[in-house]
Amino acid sequence: MNRQNGATGIGLLGAGVVGSQVVRVILDPDANNQLSLNGILVRDIERQRDGVPSELLSTDPEMVLSDDRNDIIIEVMGGEEPARSYMAAALSAGKHVVTANKEALAKHGDELTNLAVQNGVSLSFEASVGGGIPVLAVIQDSLTANRIESIRAIINGTTNYILSSMDESGMSFEDALSEAQELGYAEADPTADVDAHDAVYKLSILARLAFGASASPDMIHREGIRNIGAKDLRYARALGFTVKLLAIARAGPDGVRCRVHPALVPADVPMANVNGVLNAVELNGDLLGPLWLQGRGAGAGPTASAVMGDVLRIAKGMLSNGSKASERTNAPNVVDMDDLQVRYYVRLTCLDRFGVLAKIAGVFGDATISIASVLQFDADDERGLADLVIMTHPSREASMQEAASRLRQLDVVASLENLIRVEDYDTV
Amino acid sequence: MNRQNGATGIGLLGAGVVGSQVVRVILDPDANNQLSLNGILVRDIERQRDGVPSELLSTDPEMVLSDDRNDIIIEVMGGEEPARSYMAAALSAGKHVVTANKEALAKHGDELTNLAVQNGVSLSFEASVGGGIPVLAVIQDSLTANRIESIRAIINGTTNYILSSMDESGMSFEDALSEAQELGYAEADPTADVDAHDAVYKLSILARLAFGASASPDMIHREGIRNIGAKDLRYARALGFTVKLLAIARAGPDGVRCRVHPALVPADVPMANVNGVLNAVELNGDLLGPLWLQGRGAGAGPTASAVMGDVLRIAKGMLSNGSKASERTNAPNVVDMDDLQVRYYVRLTCLDRFGVLAKIAGVFGDATISIASVLQFDADDERGLADLVIMTHPSREASMQEAASRLRQLDVVASLENLIRVEDYDTV
Repeated sequence: MNRQNGATGIGLLGAGVVGSQVVRVILDPDANNQLSLNGILVRDIERQRDGVPSELLSTDPEMVLSDDRNDIIIEVMGGEEPARSYMAAALSAGKHVVTANKEALAKHGDELTNLAVQNGVSLSFEASVGGGIPVLAVIQDSLTANRIESIRAIINGTTNYILSSMDESGMSFEDALSEAQELGYAEADPTADVDAHDAVYKLSILARLAFGASASPDMIHREGIRNIGAKDLRYARALGFTVKLLAIARAGPDGVRCRVHPALVPADVPMANVNGVLNAVELNGDLLGPLWLQGRGAGAGPTASAVMGDVLRIAKGMLSNGSKASERTNAPNVVDMDDLQVRYYVRLTCLDRFGVLAKIAGVFGDATISIASVLQFDADDERGLADLVIMTHPSREASMQEAASRLRQLDVVASLENLIRVEDYDTV
Repeated sequence: MNRQNGATGIGLLGAGVVGSQVVRVILDPDANNQLSLNGILVRDIERQRDGVPSELLSTDPEMVLSDDRNDIIIEVMGGEEPARSYMAAALSAGKHVVTANKEALAKHGDELTNLAVQNGVSLSFEASVGGGIPVLAVIQDSLTANRIESIRAIINGTTNYILSSMDESGMSFEDALSEAQELGYAEADPTADVDAHDAVYKLSILARLAFGASASPDMIHREGIRNIGAKDLRYARALGFTVKLLAIARAGPDGVRCRVHPALVPADVPMANVNGVLNAVELNGDLLGPLWLQGRGAGAGPTASAVMGDVLRIAKGMLSNGSKASERTNAPNVVDMDDLQVRYYVRLTCLDRFGVLAKIAGVFGDATISIASVLQFDADDERGLADLVIMTHPSREASMQEAASRLRQLDVVASLENLIRVEDYDTV
């Protein structure tokens, strides 16, 4: 490593909330961390940033990327481009890269990992998943003797905050979203979070590390939470569940299935009690059994904790290039949803009259789906409608989708309001 | 590293339940782990061990320790001696050591760490604390940018199983212990677990890594669970708490305070819901905030997971010698209990008559301890006795001990049955 006076040289891309926190940690005189910060790329050089020396700022990426003193480039700009190009340039120039960028890693992880391997440098991205929770290091370094069997996680704080609020107060999705936006937990354009793109990026990264599976975002089943109504949370509670946006990857005989969708979670398991903006990851290893990690999944402090953990590991010579995928001789397939077997919660608005249930049950029967229970809620006498919630026994996803499409066509069904998978827990 | 055909040479000390599992993982043909097992030290060469090749067994420690092919010595014998001597010999001979031995590490960690540093090899002991939970790697490698503020943990599965059983079924300590022994969760001589020596060893190791504090076992306040009665669990529940054996280390202005004792934990925090033989560790970092880790704290699989994680990290060249203590210029003091400020639960058996409470309250008042609530339970009319539970406001430990000693001398107090500290949670 090209050290000046024994110090490791750092170039920083981005000085927003996270970047400024990273600067303060690097420059903390008490830390004695042997790091030397040489330059910071920003868009607006005039903005006030607490604790960030203005003489280090530049709007020219080359000032940071081409500075020979920099051993490590920290990328905390976010977004796909130009972050990806800058990271590729840094790796090609033989610099280690530490990034918090889930989108760039999920979409271009293979390319960037290969560049790191080719150039003998490390690519570290602990901060890209789970904020300060060191889930990637745990998978890569501590559980290496295990075959990971499954990952289940709450890895998007915004949606978890919204679902927690809806569950606590009975408010609608729209109201809970507005509240989250006012509190700064959701962005003005909430699409990345509420439509689950963010969680898909993170699951893609987790699946690559844990299973060696090249699960690009477009291969991961994705459903967001826009369609979850206050009624679903109320009915779920009556049935002994809550609703969480889960990211799940599970190894099976045919490959790894990756999916992000709202799920009914039994109210008495730890996953159901991860509330607010917290994140939690449950890993299952063949030797270890279940391992549970929980902490702050976002924010300047937790993200800087993960970024600086990576930086200090590299400075100590503990390299990591996220290349578990390339170590595997047989990367597993990523399999689709068709053969998934879970229980389903089906909420219908239907006519409140004799014979309706027989017709609905007939559709389930034709699809060879066994009904476990039927509950009627909230009859709307004026319109002659009732809410019907059907819980199935474990059934095949493809069959359930077929049944759903037939239910939508039934004349006695006004609307198939929601179809939510149940996540069952044998173990904690 | 002295590799044969590119493989890392391994010598194993001990082939009990954990050692045999380690052997099976090393020899697993699917793992492709580039490890070569050269010899196994055992006491009884005739014993049947599943999957352990008998031609590797030896009763002569030199056969393993002096074998030049061995790069790494794995110690899973347990106990203080001869394990410590064997590890010291291996480190002095320039071999890396991986151990699951909490007692040897807690008592001789400084000596063994110095030997590792002097000989340029690593000493790894993930399996010594929390079984398969990678808490040491998280502290040493991932949270390095944080100042750790506190650790709170359930790190003894036996006592947690006993307390969980007592809480669920109302059974006595003795019955719960017998049940745990029948199930194999407690040993025939349960002293190490129920008198909290085991938890003290583990907290000593955690405190050295997290704070750089040389907290040897005899500097750690230790109380076991023998004195916890079914009544305490019942009364705690009535007050909104459960009882857990906690290991706590917290940095303060004067140093680090380390203590292991039963504590009242609010029933609605995650720590209260860690049941059975599970372990859980809550770390608080200045950047990260709280991080929660939970998993199986014992057993062959989890322990082998941690041992082999260390082995594979060393084989990949990621060295660790547990020398954070030696990196610190100012190792913090370990401070005693006198200035601890917590709330207390005090259970008394006292005379059931007029004026008793005034006398008892007088003792608290003289010690400047403020009483928060007084509850009377289970009057025993025949003997004229009643159970009195007093909850205090936060008070100084030294004052509470002084008050306890005066309460024991009061003629109206038949017995001071228990004094349990309350562990308060501001954050999850």
